[in-house]
Amino acid sequence: MSAALGSWQQGEVQTVSEFLESLRKVVGDSNVVIGDAIHLDYTHDEAMTAAPITPLAVIFPSSTSDVVEIMRSASEAHLPVVARGSGTGLSGGCLPVADGIVLAFDRMNAIREIDVDNQVAVVEPGVTLEQLNAALVEKGLTYPVSPGEPTASLGGNVATNAGGMRAIRYGVTRQHVLGLEVVLADGTVMRTGGKYVKSSSGYDLTQLLIGSEGTLAVTTEVIVKVEPLQAEAATILAPFATLAEVSKAVPHIVGSGIQPSILEYIDLLAMGGITSSAGLDLGIPDEVKSRALAYLVVVLEGSNESRVQEDVERLATLLSDLGALDVYVLPSTAGGQLIAARERAFFVAKASGADDIVDAVIPRAAIPDYLAEVADLAGAFGALVTGCGHVGDGNVHLSIFQPDAERRHSLIAAIFGSAIRFGGAISGEHGIGTEKLDYFLDTQDATSLRLMRSIKHVFDPEGILGPNRLLGMTGEKS
Amino acid sequence: MSAALGSWQQGEVQTVSEFLESLRKVVGDSNVVIGDAIHLDYTHDEAMTAAPITPLAVIFPSSTSDVVEIMRSASEAHLPVVARGSGTGLSGGCLPVADGIVLAFDRMNAIREIDVDNQVAVVEPGVTLEQLNAALVEKGLTYPVSPGEPTASLGGNVATNAGGMRAIRYGVTRQHVLGLEVVLADGTVMRTGGKYVKSSSGYDLTQLLIGSEGTLAVTTEVIVKVEPLQAEAATILAPFATLAEVSKAVPHIVGSGIQPSILEYIDLLAMGGITSSAGLDLGIPDEVKSRALAYLVVVLEGSNESRVQEDVERLATLLSDLGALDVYVLPSTAGGQLIAARERAFFVAKASGADDIVDAVIPRAAIPDYLAEVADLAGAFGALVTGCGHVGDGNVHLSIFQPDAERRHSLIAAIFGSAIRFGGAISGEHGIGTEKLDYFLDTQDATSLRLMRSIKHVFDPEGILGPNRLLGMTGEKS
Repeated sequence: MSAALGSWQQGEVQTVSEFLESLRKVVGDSNVVIGDAIHLDYTHDEAMTAAPITPLAVIFPSSTSDVVEIMRSASEAHLPVVARGSGTGLSGGCLPVADGIVLAFDRMNAIREIDVDNQVAVVEPGVTLEQLNAALVEKGLTYPVSPGEPTASLGGNVATNAGGMRAIRYGVTRQHVLGLEVVLADGTVMRTGGKYVKSSSGYDLTQLLIGSEGTLAVTTEVIVKVEPLQAEAATILAPFATLAEVSKAVPHIVGSGIQPSILEYIDLLAMGGITSSAGLDLGIPDEVKSRALAYLVVVLEGSNESRVQEDVERLATLLSDLGALDVYVLPSTAGGQLIAARERAFFVAKASGADDIVDAVIPRAAIPDYLAEVADLAGAFGALVTGCGHVGDGNVHLSIFQPDAERRHSLIAAIFGSAIRFGGAISGEHGIGTEKLDYFLDTQDATSLRLMRSIKHVFDPEGILGPNRLLGMTGEKS
Repeated sequence: MSAALGSWQQGEVQTVSEFLESLRKVVGDSNVVIGDAIHLDYTHDEAMTAAPITPLAVIFPSSTSDVVEIMRSASEAHLPVVARGSGTGLSGGCLPVADGIVLAFDRMNAIREIDVDNQVAVVEPGVTLEQLNAALVEKGLTYPVSPGEPTASLGGNVATNAGGMRAIRYGVTRQHVLGLEVVLADGTVMRTGGKYVKSSSGYDLTQLLIGSEGTLAVTTEVIVKVEPLQAEAATILAPFATLAEVSKAVPHIVGSGIQPSILEYIDLLAMGGITSSAGLDLGIPDEVKSRALAYLVVVLEGSNESRVQEDVERLATLLSDLGALDVYVLPSTAGGQLIAARERAFFVAKASGADDIVDAVIPRAAIPDYLAEVADLAGAFGALVTGCGHVGDGNVHLSIFQPDAERRHSLIAAIFGSAIRFGGAISGEHGIGTEKLDYFLDTQDATSLRLMRSIKHVFDPEGILGPNRLLGMTGEKS
């Protein structure tokens, strides 16, 4: 057993089976699952590179007080705890550890409140995005953060600071979470923030917890800001002769004052994969297709049809001026299908045999130069790299096709190194988890890493929460 | 001398005069100011309740490397350091300590870059809001965070997480700062974030530093997100018979999908003070004025005149339906004057003899009940309380007229206690500083306070940065 269990014999609980027995008393027998009874789903997330790991047990709490009891017991036993929402993460953030437990929030999936006057929803961490939006739409509201996987949970979204296609207009999870209830490693319950959009009353612990990938505390309630639903939408597709032209168009679109809800680039290969896997014919003439190496997809939304139409016309003119080969306003069905297909790009890449994906973020104006450098690196490492991404946010999603693990690792390290030289960061929204940890530790400056690790130690002195991810702390006693 | 100087004799620097001599070598003789030569401005901020304090010295660095040298020396000498921008804070955040130095950023006032393509500005901490906006307007851009004092510095705005009237649409400082360069207590330089709007790459130290009131690190550069300037604006003034009706109208306006840039309430007394001090006649008939106990001020902005006009008409209808006594679309001059006058509300309150101001934040829908409770409390404590504020954000600014310090303290404690019972917090944007410290410590839960203090200790183990404010840590060695 690992060092994380070094003090196992010292606690009040003497053995693993006694520990699990104590948890059965808290959550009920059927909510402590061990051994072969653990469903395969709970042994991994969607990260391409991580081998499944079976934990000691998967525990399904039903309430904050369950979580308190579980954390108290785990803390006493010095037993690693990995929190899990829907398991849709892409970096191994909820990958189990073999000698620890998985705290799975499937049962904590109640929408506690939709407060229309304050434009706020209060949810348990296991609530999914589609579940929340289904409840909100009845009240003319929406939770606009849309990381592309509607079955993702709000708790998981908080852990990774999930983003997605609509961040260009609405921001990411960080801009929508107003408050949290969390349980600390020792079982203490803490509330941060509340149903208010601003505060200057001490350090912002809500913001510190968002994106901490389950290494600081376990989330048991999330207060999110929601928005009025926009009734009208239009999808515009613009093929360009080169990827560089697409990227160069972006600052002009953002600067124009037109506020797209979605602004995506899709390169030739990614577009082929996305449309063919979805059986989607966008009606682009072959003559245009043959000259198009990259596409820009823009969605405009509003509450007023005539305004959306006016913006569509203004945008179409702008795109032509910026060198688009043509501009297509897609019928709403095709538009919806293209966006849905784009959301599945990860699974298309996976099905096509991609070996890994990355989602580096860079200043948006640097995208042309960055993608040129990525193409050079791909060539140098004998790899195929295709891409699409949130070009308005400078967040590029690259699928890496290079089966040789060592060469792939060197290529990805070079791709991340380039992003950082361009003034960016390793991940715009997928997080570090277990799978991007080496790259993160190799590139993060020593001072900020030291501070992050010391903060981790403040919250979780025994290191039982999410060992071996994000900061590479093993849970050994310090 | 205080405990903060306990190790004074142990460092390499033996005496205060030797310490100051070492700083003169760094920044030049004229930039180390001591004794009677210290201008009164540097002995206080705009907090009403704080008595001026003359520090050992005021130091004016000109560069990050100056700050590094100063912090190294101060750290060796275990000497308290208070950072100061323009001194326009309202809670004593930059109030000097008598046995420490003030690090004044007047000379670090260069706009390092305006990057149009990335919609980003890079500034030194002493840059003021009016200076930044003057440079941005030439490029069709604006920094929309507008805390009401155009001479405020960006460094100070970061320290308090400044908000202001335009937060309802654009958010506060926290939503606009993308990255920081800071110097830690020991002189180490650290960069956080960058010219990108999202990241999931470790704990968000940028967000942790924002609002930390100079207690974690000294800011030496700020990267802010800027926005396209909106060419068209309209100001709408709606008198209501009661304050409760004003507050009840707010959720309907926010929920309507019309996106006001400003949404303020002004009560009868505050309106009288604001307009009379500005010599402003808004042309409201006496008959309406005599029935109006409160006003709602709404500013709509856009790039397109016809849309703004359309929104004005929609809003006017909505306001009538919500019970406004009348709806006035102010001519642009009068509109601008009213907003400018509202920005000076603090100084009007001060000139009228207010004894203190508070800026509690609560869920916006709770404002009617909260203000009713505040009125009851004012009566019970024999005080006059007038108000205005960012009603769309739930952020109410109250002027407290009660000269007796003890009764005033009890009243303010009750007003804060009520805000917290309504699910709010002590300060929406002014911060805690020295002046709201007692109230904060009395109401903050023990767990979050312990975590904040431990985080402070991680960044500043000797406690030399901003002692006696925000968290009440004295700088004594732990």
